[in-house]
Amino acid sequence: MCAIQKGNNNLGKVKPEDFIVINSPEELRRLRSDQLPAVCAELRDTLIRSLSVNPGHFASSMGAVDLTVALHYVFNTPYDRIVWDVGHQAYAHKLLTGRRDRFDTNRKLGGLCGFPTPSESQYDTFTAGHASNSISAALGMAVASAMKEDEPRRNVVAVIGDASIGGGLAFEGLNNAANTPNNLLIILNDNEMSIDNNVGSLKSYLAGINTSKRYNKLRYKGYRLLRNLGLVSDSRRGSIIRFNNSIKSLLSHQQNIFEGLNIRYFGPIDGNDVEKVVRVLRDIKDMEGPRLLHIRTTKGCGYTPAEKEPSLWHAPGCFDPATGHRSEDTPDDGKPPKWQDIFGETLVELARSNHKIIGITAAMLSGTSVSKLQETMPDRVFDVGISEGHAVTFAGGLAKDGMLPYCAIYSAFLQRAYDHIIHDVAIQGLPVVFCIDRAGLVGEDGVTHHGLYDLAYLRTIPGMTIASPSDVATLRDLMFTAQHAGHPMAIRYPRGRSNISGDWHTPMQPIKIGQGRRLKAGTDAVVLSIGPIADDVAKAIESAERSDGLSIGHYDMIFLKPIDEDLLREAAETGAPILTVEDASRNGGLGSAVVEWLNDHGYRNHVTRIGVPDKFIAHGTVAQLREICGMDTVSISDAIKAAALTKRVETTS
Amino acid sequence: MCAIQKGNNNLGKVKPEDFIVINSPEELRRLRSDQLPAVCAELRDTLIRSLSVNPGHFASSMGAVDLTVALHYVFNTPYDRIVWDVGHQAYAHKLLTGRRDRFDTNRKLGGLCGFPTPSESQYDTFTAGHASNSISAALGMAVASAMKEDEPRRNVVAVIGDASIGGGLAFEGLNNAANTPNNLLIILNDNEMSIDNNVGSLKSYLAGINTSKRYNKLRYKGYRLLRNLGLVSDSRRGSIIRFNNSIKSLLSHQQNIFEGLNIRYFGPIDGNDVEKVVRVLRDIKDMEGPRLLHIRTTKGCGYTPAEKEPSLWHAPGCFDPATGHRSEDTPDDGKPPKWQDIFGETLVELARSNHKIIGITAAMLSGTSVSKLQETMPDRVFDVGISEGHAVTFAGGLAKDGMLPYCAIYSAFLQRAYDHIIHDVAIQGLPVVFCIDRAGLVGEDGVTHHGLYDLAYLRTIPGMTIASPSDVATLRDLMFTAQHAGHPMAIRYPRGRSNISGDWHTPMQPIKIGQGRRLKAGTDAVVLSIGPIADDVAKAIESAERSDGLSIGHYDMIFLKPIDEDLLREAAETGAPILTVEDASRNGGLGSAVVEWLNDHGYRNHVTRIGVPDKFIAHGTVAQLREICGMDTVSISDAIKAAALTKRVETTS
Repeated sequence: MCAIQKGNNNLGKVKPEDFIVINSPEELRRLRSDQLPAVCAELRDTLIRSLSVNPGHFASSMGAVDLTVALHYVFNTPYDRIVWDVGHQAYAHKLLTGRRDRFDTNRKLGGLCGFPTPSESQYDTFTAGHASNSISAALGMAVASAMKEDEPRRNVVAVIGDASIGGGLAFEGLNNAANTPNNLLIILNDNEMSIDNNVGSLKSYLAGINTSKRYNKLRYKGYRLLRNLGLVSDSRRGSIIRFNNSIKSLLSHQQNIFEGLNIRYFGPIDGNDVEKVVRVLRDIKDMEGPRLLHIRTTKGCGYTPAEKEPSLWHAPGCFDPATGHRSEDTPDDGKPPKWQDIFGETLVELARSNHKIIGITAAMLSGTSVSKLQETMPDRVFDVGISEGHAVTFAGGLAKDGMLPYCAIYSAFLQRAYDHIIHDVAIQGLPVVFCIDRAGLVGEDGVTHHGLYDLAYLRTIPGMTIASPSDVATLRDLMFTAQHAGHPMAIRYPRGRSNISGDWHTPMQPIKIGQGRRLKAGTDAVVLSIGPIADDVAKAIESAERSDGLSIGHYDMIFLKPIDEDLLREAAETGAPILTVEDASRNGGLGSAVVEWLNDHGYRNHVTRIGVPDKFIAHGTVAQLREICGMDTVSISDAIKAAALTKRVETTS
Repeated sequence: MCAIQKGNNNLGKVKPEDFIVINSPEELRRLRSDQLPAVCAELRDTLIRSLSVNPGHFASSMGAVDLTVALHYVFNTPYDRIVWDVGHQAYAHKLLTGRRDRFDTNRKLGGLCGFPTPSESQYDTFTAGHASNSISAALGMAVASAMKEDEPRRNVVAVIGDASIGGGLAFEGLNNAANTPNNLLIILNDNEMSIDNNVGSLKSYLAGINTSKRYNKLRYKGYRLLRNLGLVSDSRRGSIIRFNNSIKSLLSHQQNIFEGLNIRYFGPIDGNDVEKVVRVLRDIKDMEGPRLLHIRTTKGCGYTPAEKEPSLWHAPGCFDPATGHRSEDTPDDGKPPKWQDIFGETLVELARSNHKIIGITAAMLSGTSVSKLQETMPDRVFDVGISEGHAVTFAGGLAKDGMLPYCAIYSAFLQRAYDHIIHDVAIQGLPVVFCIDRAGLVGEDGVTHHGLYDLAYLRTIPGMTIASPSDVATLRDLMFTAQHAGHPMAIRYPRGRSNISGDWHTPMQPIKIGQGRRLKAGTDAVVLSIGPIADDVAKAIESAERSDGLSIGHYDMIFLKPIDEDLLREAAETGAPILTVEDASRNGGLGSAVVEWLNDHGYRNHVTRIGVPDKFIAHGTVAQLREICGMDTVSISDAIKAAALTKRVETTS
């Protein structure tokens, strides 16, 4: 596929002195097509240099360089629309569309977003953080264009990966694409893997599509010849393609599902050959009706280490361009383990002694560390690909017949399965354990990836137990306890490093469901927190007590639902103001639950709700974002002092 | 297809005196297969008689009688699992599995649920109210069985309709079915329509599958012969089928998408021929690996009026079995119009003058009355089939390029699109209007269909405007106002009759977003309500004032978000206790918003939150369920009196 995989940094036949630097699609479109490889080489060179010091999504963006150049070359962007699906393949697109000088701000506070973002550029047509939405969104744009008879027709192109196209939303889009007047072009960018290996029948299907060069050449040349001779109209050409695809499926015993859905299928072609992609795009650009072009690309194309180990190079962190040494390869130097590592190893530990336990994830195998269970007990793990809804309903089916699924999904992506949690798990009270990873502010991935709403949307669901550990031992105890809950239970924990030093392999103990703990008594104010933000709360309390001589209580609620009413009563009875702290939206979670409980039970303590305010939060480091949201140690400390002081004033007056 | 469509009540060749009454699958399995038509005829006769007086889902259940009998005959239920997808086809299943004597309680308070319900019977394997979940759930059961090496292998059968299989979740299930060890059998019950006509490419695909009798006979006999001669093993048989399907797709220019996904495809066969279905099920029952059997059935089969107009007979209400006259055909006698009618006609009115308006729904065309716009401006309506997620993302794409989609979806089903609302609409602030139908308690359809969580899950979303009209004029004004909102806006309204008498075609007026109205001042308590439950509140207030000489205020909030802070301040400043009333979950909606606001602004009025408590609510009439939830007029009145009296006691003491 990728013709330029020689040497770590060998960008094909193009020498650095021949690189062509392009800053806008208009410039690009003034070139001859044989100059495009020099554009691609320069883009790859820039990506390698830039991402080696300013980490981001590397392998996907490298693989999509040629496609990106070809699209902007052939189509009249931004009038024509390119809709990227999961935008971590879109860095070359950012470089080409006037954002080169700001590319070093990528994923930083106030800088470029790591994903296409309409508010950032008119070339970014749609939000692209959750997979599989491109076909539906692009279909909307294509239909809108078809309806506006007074405006020139737009071309609309959805670019979707082989993992994303397995999501139910993509299928719904495909299923609807063929029965409305539109000229949608879907480009299936097939690099034969998602972040981890792709799964599902569709994967085998795509891998098995007959790629006999002779066959394809014959077929393609055949209809070009016929068209040049004026012997085929566009519609007859469609039927020829269809006939050809039938022949192909007969030969390969493979049926073409796109043709089955009445979407014309072209391909597969080499998507890392920019001139070829340009030729094919020009050929099919003005055809009527929905079409799909299947291209094959190599993740990391143009940088050998990434081509060899594309999973590791998905988001590799800093690296040395010359040697390919990634900073993540450096030993940890005693840094605390990640929550994910502890989750993954604890799951293995539990699964060894409980044969009912099954690990489920949805294309987040290594991200969630369910991979650890897969390495030891592959038969007990199901990575269902990008299909969070199915993951949950499938878990429901397993639980119905006696298994105990631990379903590990990132908080933001679990939003896709809200109805499935209600309908396929909670109504029946099935014992599915939701392991909600990357809960809270996630940092650099930004607005689409923060996991802020889980506490609120899960709290509406009757019979759902919702917990969040403040420390590693409690995470393990909750995972242990969930085995015997007998009903749906959610355990949420954040991305990244935990707060433990030293050995964490302590024996697990059952926790009483719905029981929190008093970490510290206090009379001037009481802070109720949930999750590992308890550490910051403790620091904030220490600071407030030290500087202002206050006495502040601190309760670790552990459970949002059922909430610990004894603790709440105890806090309320102090008569002191209460503060709630959660790494989640301020609406609907712990703060709301506490305010409701106090009201319902006739208490009148004032509550200061600390959490993420009611607006969308962009990207930056977690520390920066917490400061913006008033959730950092200093802000919490200030809030404690303000609340305690108000109380003193009231008491005095 | 349906061989017995003669005369309104002609149940094939079986005379009433030959009917065989069966009450359990064990009994059924003792019969000879040539006796099964007599069982089917009896079941149809019972369904016609019973549903004519006790309304329910008629046409689907009639069409699935033969399949139901064949499944229980061939499979060892309940050890073997039948998973129904959207259970309104499952009435014969209920009759056959020991619930005949209670069938007259169907959909009534305390009676049988209208859908399969695991808590009701061991034969009901999974919750079946929201479409497309059967494959995923059944796959979970099949995998669970495969993992239990010490138990006999179960057969697991998912029965899914041609509309449901178009949902993304079903595709995710299919995509995952082929790559795990399991023996799942999927039965595609294809009656060529959902409640309304089915849509999407898959529909054309299914309709186009070659059904040449000669071809099928040849193919089927061919491999039976080879197998009887011992010339094919199970695995070779698979390849023969696949070869046959390839031949078929070549002949028909149709590709088989199931084979493309590596699921063996059989069919189509006549699903209303019980003996034939039994033969085929026996043939494929013990084959290894996932398989799909495509059967064709006729909705309403066995009752001519229903066969002729299956949409009208989906849930026909009471009818005269002899004449086919439906009580719904009777003129309305001045009953108020339904909310849906007013919504539908208002949408047409707005669309006439605003060319950007597009109507979107997801297989709820007539249910939501978007059908009215389709009748007048078919080009402006998109019924995307059972795919709520796509409906919302597609609306996002349309809105991004200048259109103004009004997306009408039932509240309970919109849960499927929670992430799409956040990710594909709200983050970009796109002007999509969510018309949330069947919000609140819906009555007889029960636990899976109540729309109770929308207020809570939408309130978490930044920038979302959420409104609910208390009367018809306000619904129209909100729909008018939404045109110019410039951002996402949700309008929720209930199922059924509105509260207006006389002409409602008054001119529409803009409403200030976030502004409620004071209906009535009062000093002993203030009631804040949202939605048409305001009527009951008004009656409750009248009763409380009359009986106890109280002075009760009543504010119609109209907007949950942004909430009217002026009204809240006014209410709070009275110092009186506050009551909130909403036809929604008590957690997360109006009650929570009010309690939070009062707390945040330092007010200490006690709030009584009236709404649906934190548990799953079964079926019954809306009036019965409201009483159970403490939301009927009497309960509200009692709550008002209790709150006002407490306040008087406090004031006195």
